[in-house]
Amino acid sequence: MTSLKDHTTAGSGRVVISVDAMGGDRGPATVVAGIADSAAKNPELDFILHGPEPELAKLVAKKGIQDRVQIRHAENVVNMTDKPSQVMRNGKGTSMWSTLESVRNGEAKVAVSCGNTGALMALSMIRLRKLPGVDRPAIAILWPSRNPQGFNVMLDVGADIRADAQDLLQYALMGASYARNALDLPRPRVGLLNVGTEEHKGRAELHEAWKLIDARKDDGMYDFVGFVEGGDIPGKACDVIVTDGFTGNIALKTGEGTASLIGDLLKEAFAYSPLSRIASLLALTSLKRLKKRIDPRRVNGGVFLGLNGTVVKSHGAADATGIAAAVKLAYELARSGFGDRLAARVASAAELAQDTPNQKD
Amino acid sequence: MTSLKDHTTAGSGRVVISVDAMGGDRGPATVVAGIADSAAKNPELDFILHGPEPELAKLVAKKGIQDRVQIRHAENVVNMTDKPSQVMRNGKGTSMWSTLESVRNGEAKVAVSCGNTGALMALSMIRLRKLPGVDRPAIAILWPSRNPQGFNVMLDVGADIRADAQDLLQYALMGASYARNALDLPRPRVGLLNVGTEEHKGRAELHEAWKLIDARKDDGMYDFVGFVEGGDIPGKACDVIVTDGFTGNIALKTGEGTASLIGDLLKEAFAYSPLSRIASLLALTSLKRLKKRIDPRRVNGGVFLGLNGTVVKSHGAADATGIAAAVKLAYELARSGFGDRLAARVASAAELAQDTPNQKD
Repeated sequence: MTSLKDHTTAGSGRVVISVDAMGGDRGPATVVAGIADSAAKNPELDFILHGPEPELAKLVAKKGIQDRVQIRHAENVVNMTDKPSQVMRNGKGTSMWSTLESVRNGEAKVAVSCGNTGALMALSMIRLRKLPGVDRPAIAILWPSRNPQGFNVMLDVGADIRADAQDLLQYALMGASYARNALDLPRPRVGLLNVGTEEHKGRAELHEAWKLIDARKDDGMYDFVGFVEGGDIPGKACDVIVTDGFTGNIALKTGEGTASLIGDLLKEAFAYSPLSRIASLLALTSLKRLKKRIDPRRVNGGVFLGLNGTVVKSHGAADATGIAAAVKLAYELARSGFGDRLAARVASAAELAQDTPNQKD
Repeated sequence: MTSLKDHTTAGSGRVVISVDAMGGDRGPATVVAGIADSAAKNPELDFILHGPEPELAKLVAKKGIQDRVQIRHAENVVNMTDKPSQVMRNGKGTSMWSTLESVRNGEAKVAVSCGNTGALMALSMIRLRKLPGVDRPAIAILWPSRNPQGFNVMLDVGADIRADAQDLLQYALMGASYARNALDLPRPRVGLLNVGTEEHKGRAELHEAWKLIDARKDDGMYDFVGFVEGGDIPGKACDVIVTDGFTGNIALKTGEGTASLIGDLLKEAFAYSPLSRIASLLALTSLKRLKKRIDPRRVNGGVFLGLNGTVVKSHGAADATGIAAAVKLAYELARSGFGDRLAARVASAAELAQDTPNQKD
């Protein structure tokens, strides 16, 4: 195996992603298949892969990507049922810990894991630490939408079940920064999720957050559209939807579940009669286009925001296509220097007291 | 116009529904078109219709349903932007107030309105009053699902943004009762919405509610499957999803928004090329079947539970098909004697202290 450090230190334009081979529902072969796809598509991409060396070496050799992958041996695996508190105490020696270590020591720009979300967030917090000025890191995802950019950003979708008004302001700042970098929107429109758009609706902390987010729109470089509703998550009223992790997680899973039910009913509808089976053959290209647009695997990857380093959480059930999508997102964020920009943005927010407008990021 | 009172007191098997003609986005002509559809389909159905008499009389005559509809004049209308507190003070003389009055005085079994939800709930609480033992009434809806019955019940979807553990227990009891009557499930399976199915996940009040709901499953005549996630709302893990009104409202609107986005993308996909347009013609029957299955208009109608009387809240934007669906739901609930059964169920729950198992409803 080549030393990837040479690549990174040489400033050759290569991008190194640290990938956890373990902890996903489909095992390391799927992860290796995913990174092999990514490696083929992005010639400047290299990987540090974490997990049991003998097994990973075989899988990597089978895909013929030995020169793009450096393997870091890790004996243990964080399971889906492990509690975050246990993993924080006993996580050393796991592939997840090792994956974050490569970001912590600067060898890789971004980490990717499809392991246990709670454990990954807990380990990320103790190993990478929170950015100064951030109380609760958040998980942001891209959601298919009616907007021209095709996706909206929503956060938090489950890093923390609580969020006070200050946390929601930080989510607005971080989400806007993410939308600028991932969706190329110079001045994203931020909406605060509530049960109605009228100002008197909803919980007290939302009214407080409304004022904070509105007051910071200029130095945060976003527009604030005020309260938005669940229907606006896939809509075009705003580009960034801000909410607490309890509500965001349930909205995300409700949307996924609804899309999946409709997909299955559509399949049933087309299998119903000989005529409809012919129709489905004729419509195959159209349906594939639709599926590509709303396929959750294509937008696989929640991003942990608010840490010293970027972590992409892939869906636990991701297949090779899903893993490749998560790696692609990691690659784009690494290449754009997103991590540094976000840190600068949050730092400037922490200097709120001085009220100095700051236009970078 | 005939006196509908004769019908009800005569015990002729006729069912009288009180309908608010005003307050919907599309105006009274749509409401009258909807009840005309319902009247044609259900010969034993009669209506008391509330709103400005001269206008309504014309619309009713145009549809030729004068002998099925009694008009109650009401000068004023509750608007979508009116605050519930204002309506509670000044609502007398509105069509909404009058609509509830017919249920309050026993002339009609169930009320239907497509007006402002907050105002309708506020007026329902002061005019019909809460059932003894109920602290927070809830709005329950039917959600297309993978279960054999085709729908799941979810509550609360927005009556109250707060719910403590005791409220969630009442929602479980009321939701199970509704599922028994509306979906014909003798022993519905209840799930408590959370961000994960593991017992340690989520907020403290959910852990408390878990214990309360589990303890009451036998006298509540339901099974308790424990915590469920957003993906289970359209799923088959349970039949009744219990949550607070903030989370439920956002989940509902997220699901509706996602379904609507997919529907539009599907139309686009089929309009894309001549071949796909031919395909869509061939697939028309299949697609219509699918649309009927997931069309929100077909399951239009949130039901207010926990009051002395049943109120069906139709979507504000409902067209005639949507109004007819809400009336159909009202009709079925009136005919099954649901209101009395629910009252008995909640009363038996209020006697929890005695721990007397009670098997009726």
